[in-house]
This record gives sequence, C-alpha cells and structure tokens, in this order.
Amino acid sequence: MISRADAAALDAADPLAPFRDRFALPEGLVYLDGNSLGALPRRATARVADAVSREWGEGLIRSWNDAGWIDLPRRVGDKIGRLVGAAPGEVVCADSTSVNLWKVLAAALSLRPERRTVLSEEGNFPTDLYVAEGLVRLLGKGHRLRLVPKGELVAALDADVAALLLTHVDYRTGERHDMERLSRAAHAAGALAIWDLAHTAGAMPVDLHAAGADLAVGCGYKYLCGGPGAPAFLWVPKRHQDVSLQPLSGWLGHAEPFAFESAYRPAEGIARFLCGTPPVLSMSALDAALDVLLEADLALVRAKSESLTSFFLEAVEQACGGALRLVSPRDAARRGSQVSFAHPDAYAVMRALVARGVVGDFRAPDVLRFGFAPLYVRFVDAWDAARALADVLSSHAHERPEFRRREAVT
Amino acid sequence: MISRADAAALDAADPLAPFRDRFALPEGLVYLDGNSLGALPRRATARVADAVSREWGEGLIRSWNDAGWIDLPRRVGDKIGRLVGAAPGEVVCADSTSVNLWKVLAAALSLRPERRTVLSEEGNFPTDLYVAEGLVRLLGKGHRLRLVPKGELVAALDADVAALLLTHVDYRTGERHDMERLSRAAHAAGALAIWDLAHTAGAMPVDLHAAGADLAVGCGYKYLCGGPGAPAFLWVPKRHQDVSLQPLSGWLGHAEPFAFESAYRPAEGIARFLCGTPPVLSMSALDAALDVLLEADLALVRAKSESLTSFFLEAVEQACGGALRLVSPRDAARRGSQVSFAHPDAYAVMRALVARGVVGDFRAPDVLRFGFAPLYVRFVDAWDAARALADVLSSHAHERPEFRRREAVT
Repeated sequence: MISRADAAALDAADPLAPFRDRFALPEGLVYLDGNSLGALPRRATARVADAVSREWGEGLIRSWNDAGWIDLPRRVGDKIGRLVGAAPGEVVCADSTSVNLWKVLAAALSLRPERRTVLSEEGNFPTDLYVAEGLVRLLGKGHRLRLVPKGELVAALDADVAALLLTHVDYRTGERHDMERLSRAAHAAGALAIWDLAHTAGAMPVDLHAAGADLAVGCGYKYLCGGPGAPAFLWVPKRHQDVSLQPLSGWLGHAEPFAFESAYRPAEGIARFLCGTPPVLSMSALDAALDVLLEADLALVRAKSESLTSFFLEAVEQACGGALRLVSPRDAARRGSQVSFAHPDAYAVMRALVARGVVGDFRAPDVLRFGFAPLYVRFVDAWDAARALADVLSSHAHERPEFRRREAVT
Repeated sequence: MISRADAAALDAADPLAPFRDRFALPEGLVYLDGNSLGALPRRATARVADAVSREWGEGLIRSWNDAGWIDLPRRVGDKIGRLVGAAPGEVVCADSTSVNLWKVLAAALSLRPERRTVLSEEGNFPTDLYVAEGLVRLLGKGHRLRLVPKGELVAALDADVAALLLTHVDYRTGERHDMERLSRAAHAAGALAIWDLAHTAGAMPVDLHAAGADLAVGCGYKYLCGGPGAPAFLWVPKRHQDVSLQPLSGWLGHAEPFAFESAYRPAEGIARFLCGTPPVLSMSALDAALDVLLEADLALVRAKSESLTSFFLEAVEQACGGALRLVSPRDAARRGSQVSFAHPDAYAVMRALVARGVVGDFRAPDVLRFGFAPLYVRFVDAWDAARALADVLSSHAHERPEFRRREAVT
C-alpha cells in the first residue's frame, strides 16, 4: 500500500521540485491537463506585457528590427530544436500544428512524386488525419490516405507509400511508438517518416536525427507551455530543406521578403517553411516559456514523468479498485507523460472531478486522461487526484445532472 | 499657402479627435505607419494581461468554455464583419492573411472546377501572388496564375478564369480599385471575385455584399490595430459556404471537433474555414482593438482620411516642391488612407525621417509611403511630417552613411 506520505517523500527528493515556483498555478488546484494546455510560466506574463507595451506600443513598426520580431520564428524554432534533437536552422515556430503538417506532408509528397499513398494509423490524432485527407483530396491524382491498425503499419508500407505519418505519443492512450524502428521500416520501403510530436516535445527527450525521422511537427501549447493556441513548430532536416516543395508560399518564406518581387523564389534553408506574418504576442509567450523549459534536464524530466505516472497509476488502482479500466500501457517505458482510464461515464466523472479541483481531460467516447507535466506537477498532486477520483466514484457524484450536461468544449 | 494653424484648426473641428486618447502613442512621435502596424489601443493592454493572467493562468483549460475561447474566431470575425458589410456568421478570424487566401482561393477553384486560371494584377501584393502561385503549382492540372496590368484586367477575363484576385487598395500607391465594377466584370465572365482588404478594413467603409464580391481576406494588424502579426480574417458569404471545398481541413473546421472522428466532415457555415487552434493571446488583442474601432462611425473615418491625406499631400508639395514625385492618385476619392511619393533615395530618406521622429514606410524600389490611421493621426502630425520631410531633403540628411545602411527589415 502506498500513502500520501510516500508522495510527500518523493516530492522532497525531486530534483525538479524548484521548477514549480516558476509557474503561476491557482491555489488548491490539481492540474493534470498540461498535455492539453500547459500552465502559465511566470516569466511569460512579464514577457507578453513587455511585448505589448514596449515592443508594440513604443517600438511600433521599428520593433521588426529593434525587438527582432523578424527572427522570432527562427529563434523560437531553434530553442524548440534543442528539445527534440534538431540542429540550429532546422526548426521554425509558425502557424498551427495543422497548417505545419500540411506544409511538411506536401513537402514529403514532393520528394516522392511517383508515390501516392500517405499511410497512417487508425486512431491517429484526428486533425492530422483531416489535414492529410484535405491534401490528398486537393491533389486528386490518385493520392490517398490509408489508415491501418497500429500492428499492421509495417506490413502496409508498400511501394506506393510516400510518407508514413504518425503521432509519437497517442493522444488517447499515451502509448509511445518506437520512432526509430518505424522510421527505419518506412525508409526500407522507400517512404519518408513524418512524426507529430504534440505529446512529446518538452515532456521527454527525443532525438529526431538519431531516430531517423524525416520531418516533424509539434504543438506549442501543451508541454511547451506557450499559452492558449501558441504557434506550433515544424522540423525539416537540412537534407530535405532545399529540395522539397513547400506549397504554402507566403512572403516570409521568400528568398527576399522585402524585395517585394512578384514571383515566388523560396528562401534557402528552413525559412521556406514560413508563410505569413507570425503572431508576435502569442509567440513571445512561447519564447519565454522555452527559456524556463531549457533550464531543465530532459533526462530528469523523463525520469520524473515515468515515476509520477507510475505512482498515479498505482494510487488510482489502490483507491478505485476495478471501477476503471487502464487504457495506457502499464510499462512506463512505453508511455508518454499521461495515464488514461476508461469509464462508461467518463464525461460526467471528469466534470465531477473538475468540480473537486482536479483537472484532467475527457476524450470521447469513454476516456479519462491525466497528463503529468513534470516541471509543475507533484507526487502529492497525483495522490490527491487519485483520492478525489475514488471519492467521485464511490459517492456517485458523477450521476448528478449538472455533470452530465455537455459543454461546448468537452 | 497652408499653415500649422490650419492643421490645428482642422484638429479642433475633428469629431474623431477624442479617439486619439484611446491609443498608447509614444510622446513626440509622428506615426504614419498604421497601415503597416496599427498603434496600440490602451484597451488591448489590459485585455491581453487579463487573457494571460486570468484566462490562461487561473482558468487554464477551463477557459475554452468559461472565457469563450472556442467561439473567439467567430466572435472576432463577426466584429470585423460589421466593418466590411458582412452578415453575422460570414467572417472568421484565423491564421495569417496568406493562409486565409490559400483557403478562399482553393474554395473558389472548387466552385469553378472546369476553369483553371487565377487572374490578378501585376504589382498586386506579393504574398497574394506567392500564395496563388503555390496553389496553382500544387494543383498542377493546367492551373495557372496570370498577371496583367491593371488596365487589362477586364479584357483578360476569359472563359478559363475561375477567380479574379485583387487587393482593394494598392499597398504601394494607395490607389483603390472599383470593387463593384470589377466584381461585376468577373461575374459577367463567369468568374468569382476575391478581394484582399488588407489596406481597407478599418480605414473606410466597404460593403462586400453591395459590391458583389464573392470572397475576401484581410489583415488584423494594420488599420484594425490588432497588434504585431495579429491573426487575419476571411469572409465567405452564406451562398458559397456549404458548397465550396476548403482544403486546409483542420479540427476546428470539423462538424464535431470534439467527437474526435477519424474522417473529416466539414462544419456547416463559416466554421469550415477554420483550421487549427487559434492564437488566443494575439486574437484577444485584436478583439479589444475592434471594440474601439466599432465605436467610430466609418463614414467619419473615411471623411477624415480623405481630408488628412489631402492636407498632407498639399503640405508636402508646398514644403518640398518638386523633389518628390506623387505616386498616389491626386483625387482623394481614388485613394485609400495613404499617400506615397517616389524618390531615388527613398530608403535613406525614410530612415532619416524616422530618426527625426516621423515614421513611415519604405517600399522597394523607391517609394516613401505614409499611412494615415484617422483614429489617432492628427492634422498637425501631417503638417509636422511634411516639414520634417522637407528638412531631410533640404539638409541632405539622407546622404549620411548611417541612413544608407540596410537593416534586416526595410
């Protein structure tokens, strides 16, 4: 049997514990949804205020040079690159994950013009599939998106597959793909491997080069703590940069954006993966958040993540018995930084839990998802969340009508 | 001869004069670049701080419902819609102008599948041409972008033209197209009329329905004062919404974003023109700015704009004689809210002017561009700018080396 004292002891021994003070967390809230929207780094508050009042208000248009707005997408991109094993000049921060996926997927297809299949996994994150679907439909030259169960991915890598498109950590179950094995399999079949790092970046070390990935995208507002709708990122290694076609050809991707030429000439390097003007205020928040993240040792972050999620899993099973079905892998090494359980009334259970000050996610149709951002979640939080969950279930709080009423965002 | 006293008298009689206090303008600066980056509305400072500290910091993920983040793109869109003659539910705020143009241009091509030409004007704003170029190249089924001089547009509207793509107010000269006449000509040829309102929205009334436009995009950070890289907008009238294909099919454009279905089902209505998660902090600034703009009568805004630009033109010609060549139309009715002059040393002249506290834009190769945001620019500012310009030219200040050295952003 584990106890709250065990949790407190683990917190006392946690080398990352001091990071919690770098975030502005509401008093008394247990926040296990940093995999959906990361908490506010205190530094971001001051940075955004400065971007508004000084850079915008006083500097005005001069801030493109004086505050370095023009380089912000690359500067922020390079910071993200350090978290994912990219070299400088291989990552830009821009647009949304969906738009960035459109860019890199189109680029991948341009590198394999004789192939027409995008292969992905049934249950991959919906927007990734929607974007792929939109692109293959627009191309309309026999292109298709093919979805197979996870276990059949390698067998489905036939000679028509241009790109294997996968999310590294499953948004629902938290299961991690073996990036290296699957990238190798894609290459063996002549395809490119595209990885969505939405639930990876900032939560664990990843080395895109070592894993043999070809292209990647990721999210700025989950573990990177960049704020609501923070701009996303994309990674294109140097070997693919100047030879691939990026169709969202906006002015920031031009070789000379300020020459105002009528014809598009793509910039060399990663800049051609930029499109329009970046949302500077939102990107500044992410920039500040990254400075906090980069102070942490990602190996320690991952170690705490495994330990935290394992502790939570054990605490829930101890407190709730068989009322919940574990959806995530039991082996921590195979999980991302989350633990998910299924319950027939998952929506109402999560609302009742939120009302008790424990915030996780409901994911249709029946998943309770708990994300653990190791920089600000404590072991006592994991313990308290497990107890609150047990309390909801044993008191049948989730059967109350106010928790069954659906909100706009579920 | 006009004098500074005339300027002061015009300011004293200006019904919009009280609006200037709603903006945080640096002391002593004459800012004639609101057509490139609008000034900071004081209200935006507080709104962004609230979005950071309360909505993000305290509300965290709950703010998708509690702070209405989920509706923000439509709420902000509807506010913009009131400035451009759109009905509620026809405008969304999202992404960049470039990305939005990609969406509406692709939608237009889906409505005219048998036609393959996008017609535009030589000298149209570069990023619009780049986006069109990227799209027709990606489609690659005989699609093409055709550019002709302004005077040949109507004659070039042949049976292959799917869309006529124009910017309402020329970014360089400030000349306004006749939206109604050109939209009618496009329709007569069976084509759709797409308008970029980058230099229009917020600076003058425009009625997209009355003008017979089919689709439109515009910018959030110029006259709308939404802040650096503020998200842009797009307008799709109801008649085109459910029948056109929007290929950037991200999760926010899905009929049920929270059902997490694997297959894309486009939302009905304008929502299908959304793609990824919106940059909430940047969009909040724009939302607050629009509340200020919507308090002003756009007919008064336009009247002051014509009067301001005419006064500036006269003051410059009086002060500078023949040293500059007017690039904008002399007739105020044919101009947007800017006045541009050509000078062989335009780059250095503008830098010398900025050093004197008068901020305008250089546009390659030889244009000095002065934008007049009627809500915060005064007639005395126009006067002082003209005098400063005359002073730069007569003192040859622009010949100093420090003003000739190119900066990253010109």
